[in-house]
This record gives sequence, C-alpha cells and structure tokens, in this order.
Amino acid sequence: MSLEVEDYSVYYPLLVASGLSFIGYKITSAIIPKVKQSFIKIGLFGKDLSKVGKPVIPETIGVIPSIILVLLLFINIPLLFIKNQETSILFPHSKFSEFLSSILCLESILILGLLDDLFDLKWRHKFFLPMFACIPVLVVYYVDYGITTIMVPPFLQNENLIKLIPFIGSTYQNGTIDLKIFYYFYMGCIAIFCPNSINIFAGVNGLEVGQILVLSSIFLINDALYLFTSDLQTTKHAHIFSSTLIIQLFGCSLALYKYNKFPAQVFVGDTFCYFAGMVFGVCGILGHFSKTVLLFFIPQIFNFAYSMPQLFGLVPCPRHRMPKFNEKDGLLYTSRAILDGKTPYDRENKVKKVKPLVIVVLKLLSKVNLIDLEYDKKTGELLTCSNMTLINLVLVWSGPLREDKLCQRLLLLQFAIGICAIVLRHLGGALIYGHDNLFKVY
Amino acid sequence: MSLEVEDYSVYYPLLVASGLSFIGYKITSAIIPKVKQSFIKIGLFGKDLSKVGKPVIPETIGVIPSIILVLLLFINIPLLFIKNQETSILFPHSKFSEFLSSILCLESILILGLLDDLFDLKWRHKFFLPMFACIPVLVVYYVDYGITTIMVPPFLQNENLIKLIPFIGSTYQNGTIDLKIFYYFYMGCIAIFCPNSINIFAGVNGLEVGQILVLSSIFLINDALYLFTSDLQTTKHAHIFSSTLIIQLFGCSLALYKYNKFPAQVFVGDTFCYFAGMVFGVCGILGHFSKTVLLFFIPQIFNFAYSMPQLFGLVPCPRHRMPKFNEKDGLLYTSRAILDGKTPYDRENKVKKVKPLVIVVLKLLSKVNLIDLEYDKKTGELLTCSNMTLINLVLVWSGPLREDKLCQRLLLLQFAIGICAIVLRHLGGALIYGHDNLFKVY
Repeated sequence: MSLEVEDYSVYYPLLVASGLSFIGYKITSAIIPKVKQSFIKIGLFGKDLSKVGKPVIPETIGVIPSIILVLLLFINIPLLFIKNQETSILFPHSKFSEFLSSILCLESILILGLLDDLFDLKWRHKFFLPMFACIPVLVVYYVDYGITTIMVPPFLQNENLIKLIPFIGSTYQNGTIDLKIFYYFYMGCIAIFCPNSINIFAGVNGLEVGQILVLSSIFLINDALYLFTSDLQTTKHAHIFSSTLIIQLFGCSLALYKYNKFPAQVFVGDTFCYFAGMVFGVCGILGHFSKTVLLFFIPQIFNFAYSMPQLFGLVPCPRHRMPKFNEKDGLLYTSRAILDGKTPYDRENKVKKVKPLVIVVLKLLSKVNLIDLEYDKKTGELLTCSNMTLINLVLVWSGPLREDKLCQRLLLLQFAIGICAIVLRHLGGALIYGHDNLFKVY
Repeated sequence: MSLEVEDYSVYYPLLVASGLSFIGYKITSAIIPKVKQSFIKIGLFGKDLSKVGKPVIPETIGVIPSIILVLLLFINIPLLFIKNQETSILFPHSKFSEFLSSILCLESILILGLLDDLFDLKWRHKFFLPMFACIPVLVVYYVDYGITTIMVPPFLQNENLIKLIPFIGSTYQNGTIDLKIFYYFYMGCIAIFCPNSINIFAGVNGLEVGQILVLSSIFLINDALYLFTSDLQTTKHAHIFSSTLIIQLFGCSLALYKYNKFPAQVFVGDTFCYFAGMVFGVCGILGHFSKTVLLFFIPQIFNFAYSMPQLFGLVPCPRHRMPKFNEKDGLLYTSRAILDGKTPYDRENKVKKVKPLVIVVLKLLSKVNLIDLEYDKKTGELLTCSNMTLINLVLVWSGPLREDKLCQRLLLLQFAIGICAIVLRHLGGALIYGHDNLFKVY
C-alpha cells in the first residue's frame, strides 16, 4: 500500500543487493575449493573430531566469504550513491556515511577475527575490540539521529519510582526515558554480543553458517514486514538498509554452507562468525531495531546463559564441550562433565568440589529436563552431568543423533524461536504499548 | 597571515593528531617486543641474509602499527566530528564521509597486505585489488568535488592539436582539459602505485620504514607550506586532512623504525608498506594533490623504472637482487646479474642470451655511471652487471658500505629529492603556469 511512494527507490537497492548476492554466491562457491589447500599449507587447519579417522580440514575459510562480501559492498557504493543525472540520488545521500561506517565496522571485525584465528588472542585482549570497531557506526548514529529515548511500558510508568533512577531518572517525560550515554554503551554491547554469541554457539558441522542463514531469514522477514506495511519513510529506509546488507550476507553464507555442512570439507573459523554477527549488530543499530535484534538472538542468549555455570567454574568445565562421537554407530552423544571436580580437564578455575547449592540447582534443572544427570547405580552418588550447551541439551531431549540431523534440529529450533520472536515483538509490543510500528491495538 | 580565520578549527585537528600520534608511538613501541615471539610461532619469520649467521627474525610486524593507526583514526572520529554544543562542528561535517572512506580504504589494504604476507598472493591476483580498495575514496571524490579538469601548460596550449585527442580533446577550454573518467582511472592507478612502489624499494634494514618517515616529512612540509600561506579555505582543509593522517602515521612508523633499523629485530612485511603507501595515496587523492604526490615518489619511480629491464626479462634477473653481504668485512657489495643468461636463478622468463641492443644500452648506462659492468680480464668479454635497483646503484656510486650507512645514504638521497620536488612543484609550477597555489610570477 505504502510502496507507491518512491517505489523505484525502494526496489532499486534491493535489486542491486539481490544481483550482487547471486554474484557473491557464485564467486564464493568457486574460490573456496581452489584455496582450501593454501590454508592447510600455512597451518590453518583443524581435526574434525566427530568423524571416523579425525580427518584434517582447512580452518578459517570464512575469511573468503567475508572478504567477498566486503568487495560486494564496495561495488554497492557507486551503484547506490553516485548522482544520477536525470533523477536525484536514489539511495538518499545522507545514508552514505551510514553505509561507509558499516563497511568500516565490518572490515574492522574481519581483521580482528583474522588475528584471532592466527594468534588465538586472549579473551581480555579481544573482548572490547568490537566496541572500538563500532565507533564509526555509533558516531553516525549520534550525528544522524541521536535518539536515545526509549518508551517505558505502561505498567512500569510510575513517575515517582522512575525519578529515583540515578543519572537518567530526571529525563522521564510522557512515558519515555532518555538513556543518554547509556544507550550508546548498550549499542556498543550489542556489537560485542552479536559476534561472540554466534561464535560460541558452534561445534557441529554446518551450525555456524546454518545459524547465520536462519538469522538472515528472520531478519529479512522482519524487514519485509516493515517495508510492506510501514508508512514512515525513515522506517522504510532503515529496513532497506538492513535488507541490503543481509541479502548479500545470505548469498555469501549459502556458498560457505555448501562446504561447511555435514560432512564438512572446511571449517569456518572465528572470522566469519564475528563478521556475520557484526552484520546483524550493525543492521540492528543503524536500522533502529537493536532491541528487536536481542529477541532474534534468543537461542544464542540461552546458549550463553545456560553455559555460564560452566564458564564461571561453578560446574566443572572440560576443555571441549562438543557432543561425543561414537565411531561404532556414527552417532553423537551428549558429552559429560565429571562432577567430583577431579577431571583432568578442569580449566584454570580449578573446581575442588561442586558446592551443595549447585547440586540442588542441577537436580532442579534435571527435573524440568534441562540437564541430564548420571548417578552411581550402587551408591546413588551423583557422578556426571551433560555439558551445559544448547547442542547437548537438544541431544538430552532427543537422544543420540547423527551430526547432520542434530544440526537440522538446532536450526529448526532456532527458526521457530525466531518466528515467535517476530510475533512477540509486534503483537506483544502492540499489546504492551497499545500500538506498534506495524499494529495498533487501542 | 591567513591563519587568523578559524584559527581554532585549523589547530584543533592537528593538536588531536599530534596527541594521538604520541600515544600511537608509545603503544606501538610497547607492543612490538611483546608479540614478536607469537609471529615466529605461527611461521611468520624470515632470515636476515645480510648478517653473520643469518638470524631468524619475525616478519609482518608492520601489522601492529597499521592496526594501531586504524584504532587511532577511529578515536579521531568522535573527537573531530561530534557536534560541539557551544561552537559548531569543528572539522567540517562534510569531511566526515571523506574521513570514513579513507579509513575504509586503509583497512582494505591492510587486509590485502595481511593476506599477501600469509599466502604470498600472485601478482595477477593482487595487482588490481588496491583499485577496489579505493572505490569509496573515489566515490567521495566524485560526490564532493567531481573536479576532473587539469590545466594544460601554456607551451602545450595548441587548440588544434589538443582537439585531436580522442574522447577528451573536445573538452578543451580556456587552457584546461577535462579528463573525465580517465582522471578517476588515474587516481585508481595512484592507489595501485603508491603501495607497490614502497614495497619494491626494500631490501636493507630500516629502508622500508625509513622511506615512509622521509615521505611523511616531505608531505608535512608541503602541507605546512599550504597551511601557512594559502588563503583558500578548501585548500587549507585539504591539507589539514592530509596532515592529520600523516602525523599519526609518522608516530606509529617511528616506533616501528626503532625495531626495524640496523641491526633489525623485526621485519616489516608487505602489510605496512602497502598500508603506508595507501595513506600517501589517499592524502594525495582527497587532498587534491595527487599529481604532486608523484613528484614526492621520484626515488620509488626511478627504482621501478630502473628495475624494468630486469623485471621484464631484457636483462637476466636473479631471485634476490639485494646487496651481497661479505662476512669478512661486514660490508654490503653490489649484487650482480650474470649476462650470459646461464645463471641458474633465471626466472620464468628464461633469457637465453642478452640481445646486442640491450648490451649497447648497458654500456651507455655504464658511461654515465648508472650501472657497473664487469669484463673478463683476458678476453674482454662482458660478464656481469650490477643488479638494477636504486640500492645497488648507490653502492656502485659509493663503493661497499655497512648496512646502516647504506640505508642512511638512501634516505638522505630520498629526502634531498623530496625537497627539490617541493621547490620544483611550486616554483616550477609558477614559472610554467604563471602562477601557483603559493607563488605568483606574472
């Protein structure tokens, strides 16, 4: 309905993106098999532990689609921003610095990922770097929009209570509150969160790229909803911008998926996980839906939160937590952590003995089927628990699976959650606030 | 004199750049010794052939100052471009996309350099990539200025002849000619030329970084000349932009020089040569003095042109052309190419026998002391010639030298040529055109 206005300027960037996405798919598909051996030659390879014979497979291949995506975005620039002699600029000129800062941010994360793959950077060295990488994007946000107010849900609109919040409480007005600098800090956190959460949700052939493909689809569905229903020109432009990036990411990722899916011929490496995660982060920030992005990342957030007891040493954490491969039946089984704390794999945070309170919590989780506990059949003593990752949890629910089936289930689960998130965002938003960018309730 | 206008806005970016340059120097100095071993560990090392015992030295260390410079430029962004509440924006807002596109270009060349260091890319694969990298810069040039006309020197202003030039001849008007698309092609060539020419002029400890320091000084002197004498606001802004980048490059390079100078503790790698070369290229393009840049690169251009007979196989080309180290006296001697074409090092382009015409040219060059020829004492037959690089030529002129003395002479020569180039540019420009940005003759 609202597409009538400036139809051409809506479709043109998407058309360009689709064409380039296809080219990206073709080039990535062609290059990966050619360069595989060069990666092994310079020491970038890993062993696939979930296969018979643990074959050696090139690692960090995700650099290829990342670089190709950057080159595609470069080609976008003259196509989208050069003055057209007859009509005016198609993609508004004010979007130029937005586009430049996005590519800048992506290239920075690409360099960071590459260094991480090469040198295995330490957490404390690399953790805050994505925030640096997104400085240009935040400055563009500041200069172009500078909107740092958020709406407070009606049931929380208690002026007396809100005024008590330090620093920002006094900005409360008409149901909105100005987060000021904290909003930029929040966006910086998104830039740290998106790349890392994708990188952590990994360990099965095809899962890294698969989740990126699923996330891209969710993002595109969300963008399409806005493009076809919103009347606001700025909202539309924000989502054209987002889909422009995502469509091209999708093409390059799909080519990588062909080689990374079960049985994997290549490993992705940190680079591509960081890179793709940053694409989503940038879309969220500059597309003004950074809060919605978090909804789309629910599986990754769950995986992270669920992992925390092991990451923080409350539950023993073996060096590898990926599912255990059984050579006899070719299936993956849940891998387990030994709860007496005497496992030789204990990380730096040596757990002597699991605390009684933690045991109680584990037993509670076991009751609601969120973990699998193993007891000594004779003494009834608690011996092990399944490792606390979403991958292992799905194996707890479904029993042993072949690697490709496991990946499929995880991706399906992710897609289902994503669709629910879209519904939740728009219907839920409408119900809470009385209206939504898409729907009006009252 | 003209600094009175907007004094603050001239000094502020330079002040920021100087401060950050100092920080960059300190950080680079601190990080390099810490990470040296990690580079060796992952296979990034080389042997220093001009030392006793050929010690193993970490390679590609130039990645560190490159990344630090990029981070510094990121920190520039909020400092220079965020709206100031009292005054207006200090560094004009229109310069924002210029700044972003420059960093983008630099990051792209950083990635290219890193890949080249890792995978030893083939010439045909990497040659045109810098042109891709500078697409954003060219688009910014197109959108912001779009000036593609150049002045024709008065003694060439023959309208009838100029009109005969295909495509652009008809644009001749009032002594100027519009190069149109060819001007962009020319700027793209600058982006290819600057990084590669620095990378080729290498082979002696400290020369890669040393030449970057000398070039930076030349650029800064040129910028200062404009800043203190020009009345044109746009010219001033262009040179503030250029000096902002160069000042920070200087700081990071100086730290690298400490470790790369004789006796080298680290090798620079392709990355930093490409990267720094691109800084100069970008300054030239966006600072509107891309033609002057070529004057500053005369030593590199000479080195390239002088190398061509060997690069194109007219004269036999051994695998290494760096000077020959004599362990007994610790001096470097000119390395030589065997002219009978039977040397085992002949490249792909197998030269059977040097052509008589080439021999004549070599003998002519020898007459004007531009090459050293060696004859068989008995038969008088021509045996070898000194390898055709500027480094060897300086050794031909001065005789054997210790490595640090050789590097010093090369850098002094380069500095002297640079100063002459500045004089030539401004006085010569004034003499030819009757006026210059700085001087008026008639």
